[in-house]
Amino acid sequence: MQIWRIDVHHQRLTRQPSPAGWETLGGRGLTARILLDEVKPTCDPWGVNNKLIFAPGLLTGHMLSSCDRLSVGGKSPLTGGVKESNAGGTTALAVSSLGIQALILESGPVSNQWWVLVVHKDGAYFEPADDLVGLGVYASAERLIARYGKDAAISVLGPGGEMRLAAAGILNLDKDHNPTRINARGGLGAVLGSKGLKAIVWDGRGGVKPDIANPQAFRAAQKAFTQALLNHPQTAVYRDFGTAGLTMMVNQFGALPTRSFSEGRFEAAESLSGEQMRHELLERGGEADPSHICMPGCAVRCSNVFADRQGKRIVAPLDFETIALMGSNLGIGDLDQVAHLNWEVNDLGLDSIDTGAALGVAAEAGYMRFGDPDRAMELLDEIRRGTPLGRTLGHGAAVTATVLGVRRAPVVKGQAMSAYDPRAIKGTGVTYATSPQGADHTAGLTVRAKVNHLDPQGQAELSRKSQINMAGYDTLGVCSFASFGFAAAPETIPALLNSRYGWQTGPEILQELGRATLCLEREFNRLAGFTSVDDRLPEWMTTQPLPPHGAVFDVTEEDLDGVFNWT
Amino acid sequence: MQIWRIDVHHQRLTRQPSPAGWETLGGRGLTARILLDEVKPTCDPWGVNNKLIFAPGLLTGHMLSSCDRLSVGGKSPLTGGVKESNAGGTTALAVSSLGIQALILESGPVSNQWWVLVVHKDGAYFEPADDLVGLGVYASAERLIARYGKDAAISVLGPGGEMRLAAAGILNLDKDHNPTRINARGGLGAVLGSKGLKAIVWDGRGGVKPDIANPQAFRAAQKAFTQALLNHPQTAVYRDFGTAGLTMMVNQFGALPTRSFSEGRFEAAESLSGEQMRHELLERGGEADPSHICMPGCAVRCSNVFADRQGKRIVAPLDFETIALMGSNLGIGDLDQVAHLNWEVNDLGLDSIDTGAALGVAAEAGYMRFGDPDRAMELLDEIRRGTPLGRTLGHGAAVTATVLGVRRAPVVKGQAMSAYDPRAIKGTGVTYATSPQGADHTAGLTVRAKVNHLDPQGQAELSRKSQINMAGYDTLGVCSFASFGFAAAPETIPALLNSRYGWQTGPEILQELGRATLCLEREFNRLAGFTSVDDRLPEWMTTQPLPPHGAVFDVTEEDLDGVFNWT
Repeated sequence: MQIWRIDVHHQRLTRQPSPAGWETLGGRGLTARILLDEVKPTCDPWGVNNKLIFAPGLLTGHMLSSCDRLSVGGKSPLTGGVKESNAGGTTALAVSSLGIQALILESGPVSNQWWVLVVHKDGAYFEPADDLVGLGVYASAERLIARYGKDAAISVLGPGGEMRLAAAGILNLDKDHNPTRINARGGLGAVLGSKGLKAIVWDGRGGVKPDIANPQAFRAAQKAFTQALLNHPQTAVYRDFGTAGLTMMVNQFGALPTRSFSEGRFEAAESLSGEQMRHELLERGGEADPSHICMPGCAVRCSNVFADRQGKRIVAPLDFETIALMGSNLGIGDLDQVAHLNWEVNDLGLDSIDTGAALGVAAEAGYMRFGDPDRAMELLDEIRRGTPLGRTLGHGAAVTATVLGVRRAPVVKGQAMSAYDPRAIKGTGVTYATSPQGADHTAGLTVRAKVNHLDPQGQAELSRKSQINMAGYDTLGVCSFASFGFAAAPETIPALLNSRYGWQTGPEILQELGRATLCLEREFNRLAGFTSVDDRLPEWMTTQPLPPHGAVFDVTEEDLDGVFNWT
Repeated sequence: MQIWRIDVHHQRLTRQPSPAGWETLGGRGLTARILLDEVKPTCDPWGVNNKLIFAPGLLTGHMLSSCDRLSVGGKSPLTGGVKESNAGGTTALAVSSLGIQALILESGPVSNQWWVLVVHKDGAYFEPADDLVGLGVYASAERLIARYGKDAAISVLGPGGEMRLAAAGILNLDKDHNPTRINARGGLGAVLGSKGLKAIVWDGRGGVKPDIANPQAFRAAQKAFTQALLNHPQTAVYRDFGTAGLTMMVNQFGALPTRSFSEGRFEAAESLSGEQMRHELLERGGEADPSHICMPGCAVRCSNVFADRQGKRIVAPLDFETIALMGSNLGIGDLDQVAHLNWEVNDLGLDSIDTGAALGVAAEAGYMRFGDPDRAMELLDEIRRGTPLGRTLGHGAAVTATVLGVRRAPVVKGQAMSAYDPRAIKGTGVTYATSPQGADHTAGLTVRAKVNHLDPQGQAELSRKSQINMAGYDTLGVCSFASFGFAAAPETIPALLNSRYGWQTGPEILQELGRATLCLEREFNRLAGFTSVDDRLPEWMTTQPLPPHGAVFDVTEEDLDGVFNWT
């Protein structure tokens, strides 16, 4: 595996072997290592000194179920700190097959022209993207697929990334060529935009699967893992209901963001539930599919194709985070309406979490009524038109709150919270507060732990464990839901790594990778000027009670500051 | 002297003697002490836990020439750190005469109603401000004067403060009842607004001058100081040309902010010069006055009344900082046009520096052509109307750059630089970078030092000295220009303090007060999460050369980090 560097200024590719200290890393851990080694933590995230890194996980490349995720890393325009955002879809497999351990975009463009970077087995080249400028993600992807073929993987920006908005992500194709698997969080789409790239085409033709040191042992471990995953009861839940299966559970906990995080239960939660979605999709037929997959070989099938009453696809997938942030959080209790908003935010190339949170803030400021999807759509159109209001919204909830004068911004380190109000699921609140990534449920969700989520005691420990595991999984390229399988058969993690790479790692490798990754990320943030002050939820969440439980966030500052004391 | 506390929630006044550790402080030093003692540095600046402190300087109260300045302090909505902003005018004299060492506004309002707080010798009361809501500063002041009489001092907000915009200041009357002496920087007008107060009326009737321990010695010291001030050659320069006398000097240095800090010399600088202004004002007559005073008893007379060709006042005063930020920085080379913009920004109740810098950023983003005063006025009207663009601009240059996607934001700690490009006057650049106040020339200007301002060597030491002195003067309530007198007769500082208070301070008291103040401020900022990373100029100023000298800011990080090592 090689490190590929693209100097976007000179449009030049350099390939090198993996330097010492990088060989045993992948995914999130590798992006953190490269950032700390090569990017000045105080640099302008939009500037020539930031880098954007594409790195498949350590287990990526062999269609292990749900282990082919792509990490993208850079200094975040949204948080000003370290950022890794990973996505499913087909990109990571293509990158691996080209023998690329990490592709690093460096420097800044010469002019305002937009380019497509084409990466193939023998190198890379730039092509003008003039015909794609201003196009949405769907139209852009369609043209790119027409031009470069159905076998290419694609990472593409929408207008949000072109405008370098801080909530812009990078969209990747799923296995059916829907450009909806997004490196969503932290504004990495703005970084790709600042490098002058509208898209990267990963032409995997002629690529090969990465070497396996001991194929027999690998296959045995793969089989054990897949079996454990398929046997896990959650796998069936995700297959049937997708992530939307969480709606009623989180609503029951009183933690479903409702009307801009002012309540924890939504009166129309049932109509946003996974049960309701499955029922509707089965009834609607046509393109509707309640258990779709995003990456080849996935056994979980948590994705879906959400179709309208005529069976025509609206969006794929419709996920819980979007349902909460653009549904209950906006007072909208209709899945079709949320699906249409989701298509729009995808087409803009924006993170639905930060954008949904921004719309909630705008609603609180009087720019829309809660429960008005038409007005929400108009506000998304403001983003598309690049108006001052639209640009404000497109920079996410924190900037929107600043500009519009709203004090209740649901953000940490400038990044919006996702679909779990931290006052009622306090372990996830600890993760929001302390994760080097800013508020992010994927950095350490605790909602499934069998604890009293309202009790502040013990939540820091719970979050720590979850953050370490997730940083480990993100380094492996493993989807959250594959973790059910690994949790049931933890011995398969070292077995897979050792058989693939010829390593001798032990049973703690997941946690070792996780801890190492978090240390690198925290060091980057420290050098960027972050202190314990940044590891806090917003002040208002510690004083304003959340109905129905009347909970405030009351995990102590000592507990928060102890999350990373793991010696 | 007493500490007066106003709980704006309960509309209740509490008076208390000055607590231990506060008795020997005033002005900026006292605001810093109170903030560190009583305000949680991580609190929401707009929230109930922030406080707003009004504190006259230690020498205030006896019409010593230019020593009656009012410090206002709080946690800054603009920088997120400590903030003191001082102003001339008549307010500090009134506050002193009421026996108030500091008035502290605490907690938050019950409702959205606006109030006028009336402070008088026997207490304080609230009156509804319904008839003032939405009015500009000039109309508000006019009504308040009509209601409370010509002898009252007034601190008032414009629409900017009502909207709690981060560039909002607090306007005070000058001795002729023009509401234009502004606590401008850092958004303290937004804090006053967050307390639900449109204005504070300081009814000094029945008040008395503060006690003097040794009147004879005080008078002798006063005389010596006044003489030294009058004898200083700079005093005559400021009387004749006002602060506008700096235009040609700074232009000559190649440091005059031009077209959003892209150049250091402006082709039309002469038409913005103090010489030109004096010539015009003498010729125009009528209300025009090239040497006006802002506070009773001032011997410097740096202020002016800028009148149009018919002799009708446009604005008073027109100062260099505004001339630069709303003139050359916007490519506008006509004093009348700048004066009209200045009136508008005053009436909005906004800092002309941060607003001017924001307009420059907006021009770079394509929202106005440089050199188009009509469009600049339209943009100011956007602020008045509270549109998203207007709100963005009214939050200052940093937020404007973020929202509009401009990388060249001339800011430190979120606050805009003033009229000295730091690449060509590097000592002031050190002050911008390291002052706990954010970019602020009044925190330690070095433009008059006889050094090569382009040489990075020695600038940290120069800035340190200036920052210490200015923090001392701000604690005394002394205007920058009175410092000419004190610099020539430094023994008058301890003489005035000792004779007034019965103290035994020594010749280093100015520096002792300055150092102590800076320590308090830096400690507040440290607890608010600031690190050395925040003590830097923006990255682009270290790489993008400034014409005509081609200078970049190249004072080393070691030098910057050593500014406050004074042991």
